[in-house]
Amino acid sequence: MNIVVFRLGHRPFRDKRITTHVFLAARAFGASGGLYSGDKDFELEERIGKVADNFGGSFSLSYEKGWKGVVEKWKKTGRVVHLTMYGVPFEDVMSEITTDNLLIVVGGEKVPSELYKDADYNVSVTNQPHSEVSALGVFLHSLVRGGKVKPNFQNSKFKIIPNPSGKSMKEMNI
Amino acid sequence: MNIVVFRLGHRPFRDKRITTHVFLAARAFGASGGLYSGDKDFELEERIGKVADNFGGSFSLSYEKGWKGVVEKWKKTGRVVHLTMYGVPFEDVMSEITTDNLLIVVGGEKVPSELYKDADYNVSVTNQPHSEVSALGVFLHSLVRGGKVKPNFQNSKFKIIPNPSGKSMKEMNI
Repeated sequence: MNIVVFRLGHRPFRDKRITTHVFLAARAFGASGGLYSGDKDFELEERIGKVADNFGGSFSLSYEKGWKGVVEKWKKTGRVVHLTMYGVPFEDVMSEITTDNLLIVVGGEKVPSELYKDADYNVSVTNQPHSEVSALGVFLHSLVRGGKVKPNFQNSKFKIIPNPSGKSMKEMNI
Repeated sequence: MNIVVFRLGHRPFRDKRITTHVFLAARAFGASGGLYSGDKDFELEERIGKVADNFGGSFSLSYEKGWKGVVEKWKKTGRVVHLTMYGVPFEDVMSEITTDNLLIVVGGEKVPSELYKDADYNVSVTNQPHSEVSALGVFLHSLVRGGKVKPNFQNSKFKIIPNPSGKSMKEMNI
């Protein structure tokens, strides 16, 4: 399983929290790493690194100057899914998409029209306007967890113990 | 079906985009309305109203001063689910939860500890830190769409036509 989430056109001030949520969702639902274009953002990288450090696994995040080279290179060995409200319902193509070597592209404010041609799939999670964060969550959940592949969060410093009426967190001895 | 999403502790400047995404996800995945506490935010209400106006359906958003009265009142006729990374996996309780008269509470920065006691269910979507937006998306998708109940977006001004390699939007004659 190798799934990488690529967030386009990140603007550190305006997108700070949304991009953070995109990558936290990516990690929680089983992606192995993230890429982002737009403006380099050290704080974002630090924030995501800290969560991965505390809660385990090996999610890594890198900056890419442009999107086109990344997509072209990826297509030599894997497939590219672009999440967009204009795409075909994900339920219709889900059976063709595997977790083998998958790049999931998530747009920013302005998505280049070329991307719609370059992506192997333009896929929608409902054809309603909502959020790249919820679209990514639902898509990945359906792909990874729906597929019964449980992400593995090894070497975490903390572990949450499910609790029906409060908070329980365990500090791990690693 | 009556599902309302209640966002706690909204801070207009800091949470502007995240709260917007919470309610857009709520609407897209079939909730009939939203409530929020924290600070009153006219722009938020206008933004959500505009999307509902353009893309149909009857999603409505209201401000509530406090959370406790809302939860107590709701429990007289319906059930309250609190989404939290500390809760029990949603898959474990999903069969008990119906869409009849459901309040889904989504925390803000600081969630009052009383809420964990007052909610009928504290439910997690993975026990990993991610995003209230993706948690809500996955939970609602599983509850509503997974249940094959398709939200109905009547009287929309625009309709997106799924397109495998571009953007298509139709202006409706209403």
